[in-house]
Amino acid sequence: MVNAAVVLSGCGVFDGSEIHEAVVTLLALDRAGADVSCFAPDVDQADVIDHAEGSASADETRSVLAESARIARGEIAPLSELDMDAFECVLLPGGFGAAKNLCDFASAGAEAKAQDDIQRVIREAHSTGKVIGAMCIAPAAVASALKGVGVTPRITIGSDAATAEGLEAMGAEHVDCEVGAIVVDEENRIVTTPAYMLAGSIGEAAEGIEQLVAETLRLATS
Amino acid sequence: MVNAAVVLSGCGVFDGSEIHEAVVTLLALDRAGADVSCFAPDVDQADVIDHAEGSASADETRSVLAESARIARGEIAPLSELDMDAFECVLLPGGFGAAKNLCDFASAGAEAKAQDDIQRVIREAHSTGKVIGAMCIAPAAVASALKGVGVTPRITIGSDAATAEGLEAMGAEHVDCEVGAIVVDEENRIVTTPAYMLAGSIGEAAEGIEQLVAETLRLATS
Repeated sequence: MVNAAVVLSGCGVFDGSEIHEAVVTLLALDRAGADVSCFAPDVDQADVIDHAEGSASADETRSVLAESARIARGEIAPLSELDMDAFECVLLPGGFGAAKNLCDFASAGAEAKAQDDIQRVIREAHSTGKVIGAMCIAPAAVASALKGVGVTPRITIGSDAATAEGLEAMGAEHVDCEVGAIVVDEENRIVTTPAYMLAGSIGEAAEGIEQLVAETLRLATS
Repeated sequence: MVNAAVVLSGCGVFDGSEIHEAVVTLLALDRAGADVSCFAPDVDQADVIDHAEGSASADETRSVLAESARIARGEIAPLSELDMDAFECVLLPGGFGAAKNLCDFASAGAEAKAQDDIQRVIREAHSTGKVIGAMCIAPAAVASALKGVGVTPRITIGSDAATAEGLEAMGAEHVDCEVGAIVVDEENRIVTTPAYMLAGSIGEAAEGIEQLVAETLRLATS
């Protein structure tokens, strides 16, 4: 059985984890027989967005860990407790939370810094040959975490030129990819898919995510 | 193409819609080619639960509509605007929100009253022969909405005796059902499944929900 860590970044596409991506990931992992544990950083969200109105709730603060727990049905631990020795792979659903709470790519672009816990986890995973699966904008968190390590992760966020340029400025190689497909960096053991960076429906997003999960598990056992 | 309305009740198993159930419903509907619209009542949640701690956040108020919008990626309308003339079926994911925000079954038991909008929608759907699909504890919202109409909906919430007794006291007939299976009331055109009332994993919940969606769409087109 593969032990898979899933790192969440809140609960909702505009300020946290993209919920569809997170749930499709959990379902695909469960159906493949993986043993899944969820984690999230125990920090405040960068912001809180009213998802009905699309506007920021200026006076509100929410915890990334407590909101992520909604997706995990309460079964979650602080990201600081994630020890990659116990896992063969780590998966990052997307959503703005990955670019606001796991790193600050949404505001800082190529100058982005990874949140401390995710930087440690991604570097530990990479240096010990564990598999990293990242979807939607979450490859930005991976690239920011590996900045300065001296590797060139080969990743995709779909085909948005400005976003791809930001990733390349952080030392990654961006590969254009269609929705429903994946990019595999065999050397660095990183699998990425555009998901809702390009998907027009949950079915389109799920197609790529299911491939990502299958390939992540295949690499994790090979 | 079937037009399907999905009624959400917040975002998180302990105070809103059960997220896995809602997303699996949206995915199954999309893959079956249905045209999906999401709705939620524009009211305050009954309570706000910290899903990491399991405790109530006493001073916090959240909007059922705004939180439901997280699951719907912003594409949602107030339940007051749902006109069943435009839909062939209506689906209700579970989670405590269905028993706290769509009705007050969680606190009032057999004395439960349905929230005004959901009472109108369920009665309209039932009286015009539209199909109602309800999972987990959401059949309680359906039963409370049909109280006094003079019908006996045949539904399941799995096998919990006390909960089943509460539903029967509201005029429903409860049928025990295993996780991964569904109960079909052909006469009243109601389909139910236990989902997380019994499921030990997202895969187990999804098995019943996928059957519920398939049967709901089959009835909706027959």
